[in-house]
Amino acid sequence: MPSKAEIVEFVKREFPQNRCAILEVGRASATVRHHVGAAELRPGGTVSGPVLMTVADVALYVALLGEIGIVPLAVTTSLNINFLRKPSAEKSIVGVSKLIKVGRSLAVGEVALYSEGISEMVAHAVGTYSIPPKGSSAGGVAAID
Amino acid sequence: MPSKAEIVEFVKREFPQNRCAILEVGRASATVRHHVGAAELRPGGTVSGPVLMTVADVALYVALLGEIGIVPLAVTTSLNINFLRKPSAEKSIVGVSKLIKVGRSLAVGEVALYSEGISEMVAHAVGTYSIPPKGSSAGGVAAID
Amino acid sequence: MPSKAEIVEFVKREFPQNRCAILEVGRASATVRHHVGAAELRPGGTVSGPVLMTVADVALYVALLGEIGIVPLAVTTSLNINFLRKPSAEKSIVGVSKLIKVGRSLAVGEVALYSEGISEMVAHAVGTYSIPPKGSSAGGVAAID
Amino acid sequence: MPSKAEIVEFVKREFPQNRCAILEVGRASATVRHHVGAAELRPGGTVSGPVLMTVADVALYVALLGEIGIVPLAVTTSLNINFLRKPSAEKSIVGVSKLIKVGRSLAVGEVALYSEGISEMVAHAVGTYSIPPKGSSAGGVAAID
Repeated sequence: MPSKAEIVEFVKREFPQNRCAILEVGRASATVRHHVGAAELRPGGTVSGPVLMTVADVALYVALLGEIGIVPLAVTTSLNINFLRKPSAEKSIVGVSKLIKVGRSLAVGEVALYSEGISEMVAHAVGTYSIPPKGSSAGGVAAID
Repeated sequence: MPSKAEIVEFVKREFPQNRCAILEVGRASATVRHHVGAAELRPGGTVSGPVLMTVADVALYVALLGEIGIVPLAVTTSLNINFLRKPSAEKSIVGVSKLIKVGRSLAVGEVALYSEGISEMVAHAVGTYSIPPKGSSAGGVAAID
Repeated sequence: MPSKAEIVEFVKREFPQNRCAILEVGRASATVRHHVGAAELRPGGTVSGPVLMTVADVALYVALLGEIGIVPLAVTTSLNINFLRKPSAEKSIVGVSKLIKVGRSLAVGEVALYSEGISEMVAHAVGTYSIPPKGSSAGGVAAID
Repeated sequence: MPSKAEIVEFVKREFPQNRCAILEVGRASATVRHHVGAAELRPGGTVSGPVLMTVADVALYVALLGEIGIVPLAVTTSLNINFLRKPSAEKSIVGVSKLIKVGRSLAVGEVALYSEGISEMVAHAVGTYSIPPKGSSAGGVAAID
């Protein structure tokens, strides 16, 4: 399986626009962090929903790469997110993902999202990923930002 | 109920970073469009997932404003999106929303997402929104981008 | 593609415990109905959630059979249901499904659920189905009741 | 907060048709079990989807009662379930729930579903519940079976 450094390198090369730092890649799990600045904030001082969704998706995608190897064609097929609490305007968003199932063609995982250093979850997401058979071309959406 | 022009003005003032054009506001429905350029594309020439989620959320939020009036504190409580087909790299994303229920405190709606001018849906989303009682402060996440 | 009669016959044979009547099988769509009696009611005179979920699943499954032919191994991979209004205790539940995508290996559809004869939706569901390659054995859950 | 015995008594009285045994009520969590016999099985020897959904809903509902007290009017507003593996035909289904957020008016929780004694999850669900203000009448669906 790929090392954390190999995954970091792959994501940097393939997703140059990605702004999530990869903090950890574990056993079917990952931790990523997204800086929160003016661009991520919304009226009322909250973090925008798409930033939270992006962190969820990247955290799951990285955990999946750690399990199945560097598979550029794995694509998000669904994301279900519940927004639970207003995130802090002054803290990064941290996403901690855990894969629940990694099958041959489908993977499912969940993500807890936090304002860094605060123990109460700000959002919770469940995502599903399609893992295409070797040699096939991508048919879905790489939601990674 | 507010006119389309009033909603456009409100969104411009409150969400200056929003990049979705509001094309229509109808009866419990709305149509919005997001330009697709280099910033929205991902490896393989696909549109990023967060762009699709943003369009879904804005389309629902605008439809909700059209139903309940200008309520800045309405917040997204959940979004469930299924990615169906690879969007075109050369066409804008259009979101067509329809509210299914608008209750006193909760609204639910669905959105069909298309590459502009192509009849097959690229994604489908269902979102729920919390409508706070008058005079209360925001407790959730304005997911609008 | 199979006729409605063939689908009715297949469901009767394979799912003898099913209590949904198949009213219509259309183009990527279906309408089914579940009787509501004492067994389906809950305190407060409401219809139980599992009855609504069952109707949603059967409506989608029947629509899928109508599109891809009699495929006993198609299995539900996810169901997302929003409960919108209290159903009537005196009316059957009717589910009207519409497939959004039927791919080679995955299908997605949505269902509107009503108390028969009342125009406001009581629940709305989105389901995904896995269509196994020919010759494979079932790996999932036939959620049909 | 109510004891496990009080919750068992309440569920028995209010939901006489419920067939889930309440094994544990913990801190924002619960464990319930549903027998699997001929009535719960489907062609291919799998457990029906609605049985899994019922266990998920009861496990969440019981955890919620344990947190907010005996509130008969708490209603399920959404359930999102992913079916992961074929459950055993010879084992009960066990649901282990954990509440993620319990707000004043909305609660969110997740449930892991297992075939009893087997460590791999057969399904995973996320549910949301509306907690009506005191004195109000029920507006939703008690999904409990």
